[in-house]
Amino acid sequence: MEAARTIRRKRDGHRLERDEILGFVSDYTRGEIPDYQASALLMAVYFRGLDARETADLTDAILHSGQTVDLSDFPEPKVDKHSTGGVGDKASLIIAPAAAAAGLLVPMISGRGLGHTGGTLDKLESIPGFRTRLTISEFRQALGRTGAALIGQTDELAPADRKLYALRDVTGTVESIPLISASIMGKKLAEGIDALVLDVKAGSGAFMKKLDAARELARSMVAIGTAFGRRVNALLTDMNQPLGCAVGNSLEVIEVLETLKGRGPRSLIEVSRELTALMFLLGGLEANLEDARVRFDQVLSSGAALGKFAEIVAEQGGDPAVVGDYARLPQAHYQDSVVAWHEGYISRLDAEALGYASMRLGAGRERLDSIIDPAAGLVFEKSIGDPVQAGERVCVLYANDRSRLPEVHAAVRAAIGISPEPVQPPRLILELIT
Amino acid sequence: MEAARTIRRKRDGHRLERDEILGFVSDYTRGEIPDYQASALLMAVYFRGLDARETADLTDAILHSGQTVDLSDFPEPKVDKHSTGGVGDKASLIIAPAAAAAGLLVPMISGRGLGHTGGTLDKLESIPGFRTRLTISEFRQALGRTGAALIGQTDELAPADRKLYALRDVTGTVESIPLISASIMGKKLAEGIDALVLDVKAGSGAFMKKLDAARELARSMVAIGTAFGRRVNALLTDMNQPLGCAVGNSLEVIEVLETLKGRGPRSLIEVSRELTALMFLLGGLEANLEDARVRFDQVLSSGAALGKFAEIVAEQGGDPAVVGDYARLPQAHYQDSVVAWHEGYISRLDAEALGYASMRLGAGRERLDSIIDPAAGLVFEKSIGDPVQAGERVCVLYANDRSRLPEVHAAVRAAIGISPEPVQPPRLILELIT
Repeated sequence: MEAARTIRRKRDGHRLERDEILGFVSDYTRGEIPDYQASALLMAVYFRGLDARETADLTDAILHSGQTVDLSDFPEPKVDKHSTGGVGDKASLIIAPAAAAAGLLVPMISGRGLGHTGGTLDKLESIPGFRTRLTISEFRQALGRTGAALIGQTDELAPADRKLYALRDVTGTVESIPLISASIMGKKLAEGIDALVLDVKAGSGAFMKKLDAARELARSMVAIGTAFGRRVNALLTDMNQPLGCAVGNSLEVIEVLETLKGRGPRSLIEVSRELTALMFLLGGLEANLEDARVRFDQVLSSGAALGKFAEIVAEQGGDPAVVGDYARLPQAHYQDSVVAWHEGYISRLDAEALGYASMRLGAGRERLDSIIDPAAGLVFEKSIGDPVQAGERVCVLYANDRSRLPEVHAAVRAAIGISPEPVQPPRLILELIT
Repeated sequence: MEAARTIRRKRDGHRLERDEILGFVSDYTRGEIPDYQASALLMAVYFRGLDARETADLTDAILHSGQTVDLSDFPEPKVDKHSTGGVGDKASLIIAPAAAAAGLLVPMISGRGLGHTGGTLDKLESIPGFRTRLTISEFRQALGRTGAALIGQTDELAPADRKLYALRDVTGTVESIPLISASIMGKKLAEGIDALVLDVKAGSGAFMKKLDAARELARSMVAIGTAFGRRVNALLTDMNQPLGCAVGNSLEVIEVLETLKGRGPRSLIEVSRELTALMFLLGGLEANLEDARVRFDQVLSSGAALGKFAEIVAEQGGDPAVVGDYARLPQAHYQDSVVAWHEGYISRLDAEALGYASMRLGAGRERLDSIIDPAAGLVFEKSIGDPVQAGERVCVLYANDRSRLPEVHAAVRAAIGISPEPVQPPRLILELIT
């Protein structure tokens, strides 16, 4: 009776009470409210929205549906970074060691890729031996030893979110800003962090295609952070073309190592620097953004971040020798190249289409239970705005399943635009929401 | 996958294809689509609506989810009447025998009361022995013998509707005009009718409180009828005060018998005449409404309708002697009267409040599994507009549970308004939708 009343109240545009939200989520998580009532409420929320207070209450309900990690015995500032996901977004693998090398504690709980987007866990697992399934006590131990740990969602943390997300996925209720915000923030707050920097991506390869929606999502999550007394900033960044050059798991690990060695692509360095600098600022390591950016450059150029990466890999069971020997990473047997079909300037590298192309080579998951090929993917030699000669290589395809190459070659070519006129590269860092 | 896509398409305001609707309902009825996806789709329909073609397709899906009654071997025009439900609405018990007495075949499948509204089946079952649970073959046999049969929904007819309705009831998705229309029309079309007259009630005691919404529901159902090649008319009638004088099961049967004997209340006769006349028109028995109304008056004044009522009762296992001896109906042990507290004119007899008052005396169901008392209820001696003297009786309460009387007395009094100024009786027949 109560559940049906809550559904009708939201359906009719009323503001739900805190007790209604906490009660509904708690009863749902314990199986006392059935899926069919939860999905009806989720669809009513899709249409009617949740205001800031309701969204914070939903976040609280998710956060307290399970255990939370208590890191209060660690003296360091506890700061995490979270990205809403994109194509070629390997920034976490640079930011976590760089931030830990500078003295932050980085308790990073990440996700897996689905569809056109990649996932941090999949990238890390391309390193032989790397374990992303740690218990909370192993997670705390790894944090104590290296200052950063990158793991997957555990069963103990925010179980309501797992149950709600699985339901949203099959009931057309994923694309709701308050539901997305509460889902992300409920999990992140369970990590025991003091501060959080969000990378909210906008563009074809992002979950939010439009800047307006990305901004709204960013504001919603920053407001939740404030409601919970956490320092949260969000950076809106462009996701119309892949971030960096590599798309695909071991290919991206190689690009991360090259970046940590000072040879990374400009766009990846720029996004990683800005996000890490914000973490330094929110964590109180630096007082202004200029100094914070310089500090990022220092931990990279000194090799401290690279060393920290190797430490993290070793701590989580991975082979730290990959840092010096990329041949220890999974290798693809087949390559193919897409070349420019006439002279001009790269005008389009459609991130969503390229993400799906990479998925079809084996780098991503079509469904939650798909098996991925860690060696497969794409490496771009050009970005939007770069000049090209006819016949010059734009992209290399890597695959173990040779039969996929012709189809994916055509898809990659269709995702590339070449303009006879010069093209302005798109702005990468779009806005800061504080 | 397909179900989730259908949900998202409706959520985004697209028009669902016929195959999508038929497939979803068929898979849902067979248990291949889970309740949680169906409730999400229902909530999306609540917000986005269904257009006329989608509503007809949903009706078709419900209609063909089970068996349909084939009455094509009967030579008579097959015409039914359906009311959207109200307080004191016993018109079916007059209309079915009157229409059958005039030569129509009336295959009437009715419902039970819930909350403030009464149900035809409950009223009939107050007659000792009356069986409303007939199989389809018994239903056909009864129709062949008497020309009218009044039964409850069977398991074989429109099972999708039962499953969908139970889900809507607990997921806040009852109040949707296309869902209501398809639910009613799917069941009615399964009866094997040529034509249908709908009594769509508007006002405090009706499902639709506002005339606009009632009109929209009526138009939606008439459009479905047209899409299925059936002649369907709808009459919008007032339900701000109870219809007739009696509210409560055996009390209403007595009022029906009095009406069939020419001593009924004006409002009940007026509504029954108009609806039956429309059935004669749509069934081709009469060519114009004037003649059709005269024919109704004739079947009443000749006693043919009363005789047909007795035949139907006998055919369905009831005691036909109740027609002459009301003492054979269940009797209430206790009575109480509500009298006018000053002189004036009755200005209000709030149908919804009076329906709930009658329910609390035992005449109705608070929940689906409540047990009703067939003898309990209310009988009004005044209607809106009638003059009253101070101390003159307005309403008599009948109950077997004496403890309920004081509370219900107060509720009935609060539902009555007396104005010092003359009051215009409300119009009963509001609009005809063809």
